[in-house]
Amino acid sequence: MTPSDPAATPRPDILRMPTVFGPTPGPRQAPAGIRYDDGQTPLRVSTYARFHTDAIAVQRLLPAGLQALPEALLAIEFSYLSEIDWLAGRGYTMLSVRMPVRYMGADEPIQGWFQPVIWENLTEPILSGREELGWNKIYADLPPIQSRAGQHRCQAAWQGFTFLELTLNELCPAPLTLGGGAPVLHHKYVPATGAWGESDVDYLTMTPPGNPQMRVLSHATGKASLAWHRPRWEDMPTQSHIVQALADLPLGPLHSAGMYTSRGGKGLADQRRLP
Amino acid sequence: MTPSDPAATPRPDILRMPTVFGPTPGPRQAPAGIRYDDGQTPLRVSTYARFHTDAIAVQRLLPAGLQALPEALLAIEFSYLSEIDWLAGRGYTMLSVRMPVRYMGADEPIQGWFQPVIWENLTEPILSGREELGWNKIYADLPPIQSRAGQHRCQAAWQGFTFLELTLNELCPAPLTLGGGAPVLHHKYVPATGAWGESDVDYLTMTPPGNPQMRVLSHATGKASLAWHRPRWEDMPTQSHIVQALADLPLGPLHSAGMYTSRGGKGLADQRRLP
Amino acid sequence: MTPSDPAATPRPDILRMPTVFGPTPGPRQAPAGIRYDDGQTPLRVSTYARFHTDAIAVQRLLPAGLQALPEALLAIEFSYLSEIDWLAGRGYTMLSVRMPVRYMGADEPIQGWFQPVIWENLTEPILSGREELGWNKIYADLPPIQSRAGQHRCQAAWQGFTFLELTLNELCPAPLTLGGGAPVLHHKYVPATGAWGESDVDYLTMTPPGNPQMRVLSHATGKASLAWHRPRWEDMPTQSHIVQALADLPLGPLHSAGMYTSRGGKGLADQRRLP
Amino acid sequence: MTPSDPAATPRPDILRMPTVFGPTPGPRQAPAGIRYDDGQTPLRVSTYARFHTDAIAVQRLLPAGLQALPEALLAIEFSYLSEIDWLAGRGYTMLSVRMPVRYMGADEPIQGWFQPVIWENLTEPILSGREELGWNKIYADLPPIQSRAGQHRCQAAWQGFTFLELTLNELCPAPLTLGGGAPVLHHKYVPATGAWGESDVDYLTMTPPGNPQMRVLSHATGKASLAWHRPRWEDMPTQSHIVQALADLPLGPLHSAGMYTSRGGKGLADQRRLP
Repeated sequence: MTPSDPAATPRPDILRMPTVFGPTPGPRQAPAGIRYDDGQTPLRVSTYARFHTDAIAVQRLLPAGLQALPEALLAIEFSYLSEIDWLAGRGYTMLSVRMPVRYMGADEPIQGWFQPVIWENLTEPILSGREELGWNKIYADLPPIQSRAGQHRCQAAWQGFTFLELTLNELCPAPLTLGGGAPVLHHKYVPATGAWGESDVDYLTMTPPGNPQMRVLSHATGKASLAWHRPRWEDMPTQSHIVQALADLPLGPLHSAGMYTSRGGKGLADQRRLP
Repeated sequence: MTPSDPAATPRPDILRMPTVFGPTPGPRQAPAGIRYDDGQTPLRVSTYARFHTDAIAVQRLLPAGLQALPEALLAIEFSYLSEIDWLAGRGYTMLSVRMPVRYMGADEPIQGWFQPVIWENLTEPILSGREELGWNKIYADLPPIQSRAGQHRCQAAWQGFTFLELTLNELCPAPLTLGGGAPVLHHKYVPATGAWGESDVDYLTMTPPGNPQMRVLSHATGKASLAWHRPRWEDMPTQSHIVQALADLPLGPLHSAGMYTSRGGKGLADQRRLP
Repeated sequence: MTPSDPAATPRPDILRMPTVFGPTPGPRQAPAGIRYDDGQTPLRVSTYARFHTDAIAVQRLLPAGLQALPEALLAIEFSYLSEIDWLAGRGYTMLSVRMPVRYMGADEPIQGWFQPVIWENLTEPILSGREELGWNKIYADLPPIQSRAGQHRCQAAWQGFTFLELTLNELCPAPLTLGGGAPVLHHKYVPATGAWGESDVDYLTMTPPGNPQMRVLSHATGKASLAWHRPRWEDMPTQSHIVQALADLPLGPLHSAGMYTSRGGKGLADQRRLP
Repeated sequence: MTPSDPAATPRPDILRMPTVFGPTPGPRQAPAGIRYDDGQTPLRVSTYARFHTDAIAVQRLLPAGLQALPEALLAIEFSYLSEIDWLAGRGYTMLSVRMPVRYMGADEPIQGWFQPVIWENLTEPILSGREELGWNKIYADLPPIQSRAGQHRCQAAWQGFTFLELTLNELCPAPLTLGGGAPVLHHKYVPATGAWGESDVDYLTMTPPGNPQMRVLSHATGKASLAWHRPRWEDMPTQSHIVQALADLPLGPLHSAGMYTSRGGKGLADQRRLP
């Protein structure tokens, strides 16, 4: 009986700001009378590309307690989500950046992915993800994929400044497996009000691997190219330092790239704090 | 020498997620080489209306530690902000809901406003406001004011569902003073990851009164009408309970209403935690 | 050799405003070096519902020259288009309203559909559709379908006012045929500048049936409900009279409803003027 | 008694597509019971810059019948409009491009401005402007001005691709006069349906000078810089040829630049066809 087994015992309500209206419905709690169907929700169309990069450069983007793996990678994934039960059937898009790392602070070393930043185009999952899970989510405009003549183009922008373009092509059918299966690590941090420079929250969290309700419906692999566009401060006044740092990562040869469709998932109620 | 005197000593950097790229520029910290001019930023056009309501109903929407004042009010304000220095000259809109309260937990009672919820149409100030200040900010679409034939109409919506309309008319010039001057109280709360139902952060915060750099450029007072539209869960799956609770507040006679323009402000670095 | 056989002879350039930069690329003409692949473009997800209505009421919404059929129907279709070649792989959404009519002005009577109005959420196809084809296109916000628990909800709004909701449910697999096959009739009209009340263009046009490159990939039929929301003038100042007139049509029992996915189409270069 | 004297005799209804619902309310006709107040509407904030350019290059962008003036200019103006009566108090933004020209086809030569293209961020005025007036309007995203530290930055984009940036600075108060007063010339053109390559409408139109109801409320002049960003076809598939042609115009020294606020205007019912 663990916290990741939500059906066994009723989980206590999770509060988020604003608290005075009662629990906020979200990915991990439905309002009375509504049930989320993890076998059906969400429908996901994802494009991904992984590039070799430099472990020393990656190490500079890790929080204390995490180590870059020697085979350093920069993994980019655009996920176009729809039919999301907790949004009453609506969707949104997520752009994640990941790098393979090791965590030595537990009884056994944990090898997984660290996400220095995740962009999403809807405030709701940004708030629940940051505050409940410790995911580093911030906002970007993420328009639908442009697909034409065998080419798939994914873009990310902030108020008219396009900072990332991922283009896939020469896609060929591939097995309906995605590898993956590694934990994802995060640094949850909330500043202390008034005691500027201090923190209210400062710990690592982990999304355990495993997503038994998710079924891959299609998968194709192929080639990819990635381009960062460097913003001036005035182009992205709260995010230019983030894009600059990612654009500084050496972009080596392509490791792997592809596109898949899947249905089903999990609400990440198994997310937990690392010791 | 207090933390609210930022000019006297350099304030330590405030970190927010993502932390690994360094401090996120925002309302209370500029990037190197940029200075915010509090005498000029922002330009604000605000409409406000205060209605009498019922103190017992207000009390149900207060966090522990706050008491509704006997002369209960529901105050609604739409603020259309532009020329915001920390957004490199861009703007956004804020819709605040306020109710007069008393806090008895300090050495002396504090009388001020509690904000059960604030809607904004940009994720950036929502994140910094929630995490640095403890303001109850969530997202809404807040289109520009509609002004025609002496009538000013302000609306708030979420993904196509308009949940609030404030209409002002019969406006007449009024003195360039706004009263105000009371502290604003908040309940900062962040859930604990994995320990569902528990919290990482749970305390009250206060925005002290006083805004010496803000100049009122125009002010007019008049009549107002307010209409809540009750959403079903599927209309606003993460916010319907909030709108329902506010629409349940008895809406009594108008107390006061008006519209003003102002320039200048403060970054709220004087925000502090209540004991 | 007919105008609908574009491969046989090079079709002359179609000009649209602005003219001085040369032909505007669009659905019916690609820029040099680009070829549209009608077997692949677009990808379409459509929901449709047809309701019985009253022939006398329909007749009031027809231009001179068209007659309502005795078995009067109101057909509503939302088409979510993506992978559109002429938009370099982007998409948009179309909401069409159709009613069965007869045209007696040609050598033989033509039985088909008249579209009193089509809403789209992108200006580009609105301009080319109005000016090249005579389609009655105007703008609306058409967000993605909301799908959850076997229910599919389609909405149309203008600047925050939702004027139409179509909900489908109890969908069951159906044959990969859509019937259809009838011509679509339009009234092309452009006012004369300065000679107010007179016209520069005033004739009927026809989209011939047949779409040999379009393949239906999936189809399901089921139940549907439709709701118009009546706007005040201030809610939709240029369109309230249109929504009011459609909401006035008696809404009888459901005739048929469903949802399909298709790929491929035609550029409508076979559109022609009626005598 | 002239067409530009709308108060004297009731003007006939102007029809636009869709015609079957009756006249579409718009800038030049109000619905029953509504009156537009030309002394109050709209409120306009405009930035403008005029650069010297080359008359031979300008001549290439003119329709038959117009001649470039020897002192060739490229004039850019962003107009941020609000409180628009015909939109029930809403607003939109217009970006106009103008070049001084001469028309010899009338009894007397007309010297004025030709507008090869106007971008607007709302479909409604695009349709009425093209079809009633012959203005070359197309769609662009035109976000609010960014103003900070004495600098004003105006941008135009299409689906995330920013194609034009105008920046003003060192603004100093100037007289409340705008010069202007010249007619504006247009090429109205509508293609013929089915007879591809032929036209239904093909003539020049003129907006007479004079705008007696418009009052300039503030005016400042200063410096300006302009930057075109050249799109690939896939960035702006229906407009890349337009931006490319404008970016090809030699951009000489600044002629004049400024920013003004005004209130009031005219509905352009005095627009007329040139002989």
